[in-house]
Amino acid sequence: MSAERRQRLVTELAARGVAGLLVTTAENVRYLSGFSGSNGALLVPADGDAVLFTDGRYRDQAAAEAPDLLVEVGRDLLGGAARRMRSDGPWALETHTLSVDDHRQLSELASVPLVPGARLVEGLREIKDDREIESLRTACAISTDALTWLLDQPLTGLTERQIARRLEFRMLETGAEAIAFSTIVAAGENTAIPHHQPTDRPLDLGDLLKVDFGARVDGYHADCTRTMVVGSADAWQRDVHAAVRDSQAAGVRACTDGTTLAEIDRVSRSSLDVAGWLDRFTTGLGHGVGLLIHEDPFISAAHAGRLAPRTVLTVEPGIYVPGRGGVRIEDTVLVTSAPGQPDVLTQMTTDLLEIS
Amino acid sequence: MSAERRQRLVTELAARGVAGLLVTTAENVRYLSGFSGSNGALLVPADGDAVLFTDGRYRDQAAAEAPDLLVEVGRDLLGGAARRMRSDGPWALETHTLSVDDHRQLSELASVPLVPGARLVEGLREIKDDREIESLRTACAISTDALTWLLDQPLTGLTERQIARRLEFRMLETGAEAIAFSTIVAAGENTAIPHHQPTDRPLDLGDLLKVDFGARVDGYHADCTRTMVVGSADAWQRDVHAAVRDSQAAGVRACTDGTTLAEIDRVSRSSLDVAGWLDRFTTGLGHGVGLLIHEDPFISAAHAGRLAPRTVLTVEPGIYVPGRGGVRIEDTVLVTSAPGQPDVLTQMTTDLLEIS
Repeated sequence: MSAERRQRLVTELAARGVAGLLVTTAENVRYLSGFSGSNGALLVPADGDAVLFTDGRYRDQAAAEAPDLLVEVGRDLLGGAARRMRSDGPWALETHTLSVDDHRQLSELASVPLVPGARLVEGLREIKDDREIESLRTACAISTDALTWLLDQPLTGLTERQIARRLEFRMLETGAEAIAFSTIVAAGENTAIPHHQPTDRPLDLGDLLKVDFGARVDGYHADCTRTMVVGSADAWQRDVHAAVRDSQAAGVRACTDGTTLAEIDRVSRSSLDVAGWLDRFTTGLGHGVGLLIHEDPFISAAHAGRLAPRTVLTVEPGIYVPGRGGVRIEDTVLVTSAPGQPDVLTQMTTDLLEIS
Repeated sequence: MSAERRQRLVTELAARGVAGLLVTTAENVRYLSGFSGSNGALLVPADGDAVLFTDGRYRDQAAAEAPDLLVEVGRDLLGGAARRMRSDGPWALETHTLSVDDHRQLSELASVPLVPGARLVEGLREIKDDREIESLRTACAISTDALTWLLDQPLTGLTERQIARRLEFRMLETGAEAIAFSTIVAAGENTAIPHHQPTDRPLDLGDLLKVDFGARVDGYHADCTRTMVVGSADAWQRDVHAAVRDSQAAGVRACTDGTTLAEIDRVSRSSLDVAGWLDRFTTGLGHGVGLLIHEDPFISAAHAGRLAPRTVLTVEPGIYVPGRGGVRIEDTVLVTSAPGQPDVLTQMTTDLLEIS
């Protein structure tokens, strides 16, 4: 799998006329080699064999995870990589993450011209292969199953923190290797805070309850948000929730092959605008998801890029009314080559659930 | 608390003749401002008020966590920071973490000379204040209490993964805000792998069991390792364990005010050497711990730096015999100004425990 990915990269390298890319971003190293340790670098020449560099702690893990690669173990990863850069052209570096100090070290050691690598691997990562889609699908299923399980229990009286813990335990018990990110559980007026961290506030009758969470499987992240109400929803809660649900559904419907990211942003915002709530939508509409919880592509009005099949991204409009409350609904969706709706990986109703 | 920290930084800035430091490393931003969001930058002039930059998602959180700071909210953090760099001298940057691309953007926008900042804040972070020590002490107590609780139960037949999960659940239930790092649970021959990740291998009678784990409290990490045996230890297990225990105790005893990091390394290695096991010690001896699980200072034979009171670091020698097994013992210790032993924060016996 990672050999095929490296082949796609090599094609890009050749097209750009560079002799190779030194990959130093952890997720990109993992994507192209399979190696998941915390300290690694991967040298990918346009012509020849890739070499993985890591330190002694990861000798066995690197051999097991990247059996098809030459692994060089040592303390000075960048020095090792610089020595192997053959001088048949400029080498590209991941200057969007490489530190200034590491760049200086490489410049001193390498005898070849060094040029910016322009998020080359991030571009490849936007298009998921079968194995990645399978991991994402599993992570999303574990997530929504856990939330369904959680909402079947009486939650009134539990604190935000306790609710978050229960949901996390359930995901870990049912196959998640880890939690994808710090679970957001917000009750009542706290739902107005987009990135609220759980507190000891107990959940009360009449409260909105917002849960933004996900499981991680094989390094791949699920991202899902639902907003419920405890007891019977009042008119204001129904109004806000319906506005977000319609906006989110419009955004999801737009996630089809060839649509621009700006267009998704436009239809979702337009729906909120018609409902009279656009000025309360203060966050981004969505982002790619994969080996990182936030990765390319990012949805924005300024992004002219077009969606391609096998892109996985979130759509997550929200309304936030400080001091009163808010609603966010978010799905992780897979763009397909078939006409019509995308494949929604976080399969769970977006209707307003009244829970106890 | 963070105002006092900024004052210490300002003293350093004045001594180095720079007009200020742009802090872009997440832990350093948190340390100096209190702001714990994932996207922030802090401008600290040598003369004048510091300014915190973040994006719209974190408007409320920044105001709550950094009430004494001016907060500027926007999408372009670096642009905002560059505009506020007054031109009365060079400004320092955190070039050890700042990316090449961000550095280029700053160079284009700033009208002042930019110079490397040389891990200035990391240097300050080596000396913990009362609040940090309290958080570390709590995190360590939650960790060792959880391990003691775990070992009171029969574990034979459980998998490495199940044992890790139980320990993690216990820490989260008893006050940890999160797990400090991916828990290492290794059974039998897997104990020979320094950074083994838990598998479905069940724990058997006669196995060594190695657990490397910790709780996180207020952003501060505990780091602790113990190695036990299931049933009665055999002669080889006793021999290896005693060698590591003696080496670890010698290293811990050496963690006193004024001792060089090289000296700690020397005494711990010397003990292993006398016992005949030095060639099986293949990892680093220890590291600072705080807002990061691995931070300055790092113990090594080449580090002439001296320990100062209020430094918190780990001492963790190990013996790893591929295919057979291994032992590691690790404490998180606080260097004090009092003569004698340091303050061991992970209070738990290092004797070889025979468990069921």
